[in-house]
Amino acid sequence: MNKLQMMSLYRDFRKDLQLIEKQLERSVRSSSPVIQDASMHLLKAGGKRIRPIFVILSAQFGTYEEENVARVAVALELIHMASLVHDDVIDDSDMRRGLKTVKARYDNRVAMYTGDFMFARALETMSAISNQQMHETLAQTMLDICKGEIIQMHDQRRVDQNLRDYLRRIKRKTALLLSTSCELGARVSGTSEENIRRLTRFGYFAGMAFQIVDDILDIVSTDAKLGKPAGSDLLNGHLTLPTLYLLQDEKFVGYMNAAFDETLTEEERKNMLQYIRQSGAIEYAQQMSDRYLQKAMDEIEPLEEGRAKDAFYQIAHFIGQRKY
Amino acid sequence: MNKLQMMSLYRDFRKDLQLIEKQLERSVRSSSPVIQDASMHLLKAGGKRIRPIFVILSAQFGTYEEENVARVAVALELIHMASLVHDDVIDDSDMRRGLKTVKARYDNRVAMYTGDFMFARALETMSAISNQQMHETLAQTMLDICKGEIIQMHDQRRVDQNLRDYLRRIKRKTALLLSTSCELGARVSGTSEENIRRLTRFGYFAGMAFQIVDDILDIVSTDAKLGKPAGSDLLNGHLTLPTLYLLQDEKFVGYMNAAFDETLTEEERKNMLQYIRQSGAIEYAQQMSDRYLQKAMDEIEPLEEGRAKDAFYQIAHFIGQRKY
Repeated sequence: MNKLQMMSLYRDFRKDLQLIEKQLERSVRSSSPVIQDASMHLLKAGGKRIRPIFVILSAQFGTYEEENVARVAVALELIHMASLVHDDVIDDSDMRRGLKTVKARYDNRVAMYTGDFMFARALETMSAISNQQMHETLAQTMLDICKGEIIQMHDQRRVDQNLRDYLRRIKRKTALLLSTSCELGARVSGTSEENIRRLTRFGYFAGMAFQIVDDILDIVSTDAKLGKPAGSDLLNGHLTLPTLYLLQDEKFVGYMNAAFDETLTEEERKNMLQYIRQSGAIEYAQQMSDRYLQKAMDEIEPLEEGRAKDAFYQIAHFIGQRKY
Repeated sequence: MNKLQMMSLYRDFRKDLQLIEKQLERSVRSSSPVIQDASMHLLKAGGKRIRPIFVILSAQFGTYEEENVARVAVALELIHMASLVHDDVIDDSDMRRGLKTVKARYDNRVAMYTGDFMFARALETMSAISNQQMHETLAQTMLDICKGEIIQMHDQRRVDQNLRDYLRRIKRKTALLLSTSCELGARVSGTSEENIRRLTRFGYFAGMAFQIVDDILDIVSTDAKLGKPAGSDLLNGHLTLPTLYLLQDEKFVGYMNAAFDETLTEEERKNMLQYIRQSGAIEYAQQMSDRYLQKAMDEIEPLEEGRAKDAFYQIAHFIGQRKY
């Protein structure tokens, strides 16, 4: 899904997204030039703004209050960006979305505090909302994301892991925040508890599919489209759904060990990617993603017809099809 | 102020502190063994619990609700501990309070996520409180602390700084959170706005004095009492009130440059500390601390007499006298 497709997909909600974009820019303005520069850089690097759009769409099922919807959307995107900055420290990543990461432009210490700053700004943005349950949900989500980050570190380079470990990781890494985006968007609009439940589950299932596709793309896409070397997950010690599928495959395990030991040559990396692509692992992962997308669509089926529901279906469709 | 003096000082509020201690322990329990181990280690390392006691004492001026007071106190101590963990990454510190730091026991990545976890837990603890203004105050304080951390990094090893830079740093590093401890303690008890203002300012002034004394102790105390080498601030590139006083002193500047270049020998470190101690710098810093303490005590003078006010006076007195 590129920017153009996104804009066409988001057409009906462009005004809302523009408001959120403006407030995001205002949010990262800071009296400290380093923080402002680091976070503005991250903001301008783009991203799909999938959390804000989930908030906006979910809020369509109740009474849409522009200002409060924007607050929730901005807070969730800031939390997402903060966790990206902290993740880059962990992964020792120098590139993200084709641009240098905060930690590469500055250092780990700036990356840590820029992340902290964005978290704090997210809370400040949310503090204007007086719905206590929303604060509880958000705090719980942040806790679960933190635990997930530690689990991900713990699972790094571990070969004694299975599908359940993987699903637990991507739940905390991606699905939870998307699920919370839908829940808080729905809640801030005051729709029915039944609608809130359905939208929350939609966000969760769509998030699981989204991360599986992301993990597939890390293997099947090109360095240029990814903005970082294909196969980065494995190079960083992260086993994903396609590579877990190959843990019994001797040839793959050879590649994997070299990747973990950082002895994999550039040619071997390309051969490895080729090998994974023709192994059936991609189709296996794709099927699982499709099953999650079907569950997501089933969840919102009973919801009121309209532009928001259409857009959710389109997004689910795009998640399944997306090439970068 | 050691543990024994503290217990005697806090005697009247022992029950409240014990409740908070128990809830702190419960708070750092986590499904992730690494996080739990890292944060329990930090918790057991002690600390003066000065933020919880400020919350408890400030709450005495209104209607004391044990459970809500404990929530606020736990949240503020968790935020304090989280910022310590993140600071140790910045300072590359291996020792704190005579024990290995989280980053030394594990690594920078665990330290970062343990800090994140504690922040998130603090928010979860606070989310049960429905007073919106308290959430706004806390979010604003966290933002200011983050900005302060970046400023502190920026000021590291900079010799073109003055008293104003120092005061701005210690305000954000220490005074703000103590001030917020008093404000939220007062606010949760529903006392008058006038009392809230006075207690908030008491926390601020006492916090400024507390940090100045901390910075003095870094020079006049012993390695054993500090649990880290005396002079660590300078070794980490941080100029404090006593050392700022000596920025025109050629001999001191020689020591300082060697400290910044990490070429200072162990003998030179001792000579440097001796040199600072006899230079008048300590008395200068002590006087400034005393002035802040006087301001703190003046603020609470009009408050209702009682155990809480007595305890505040005693704490102010101890801050001025404390030896470690």
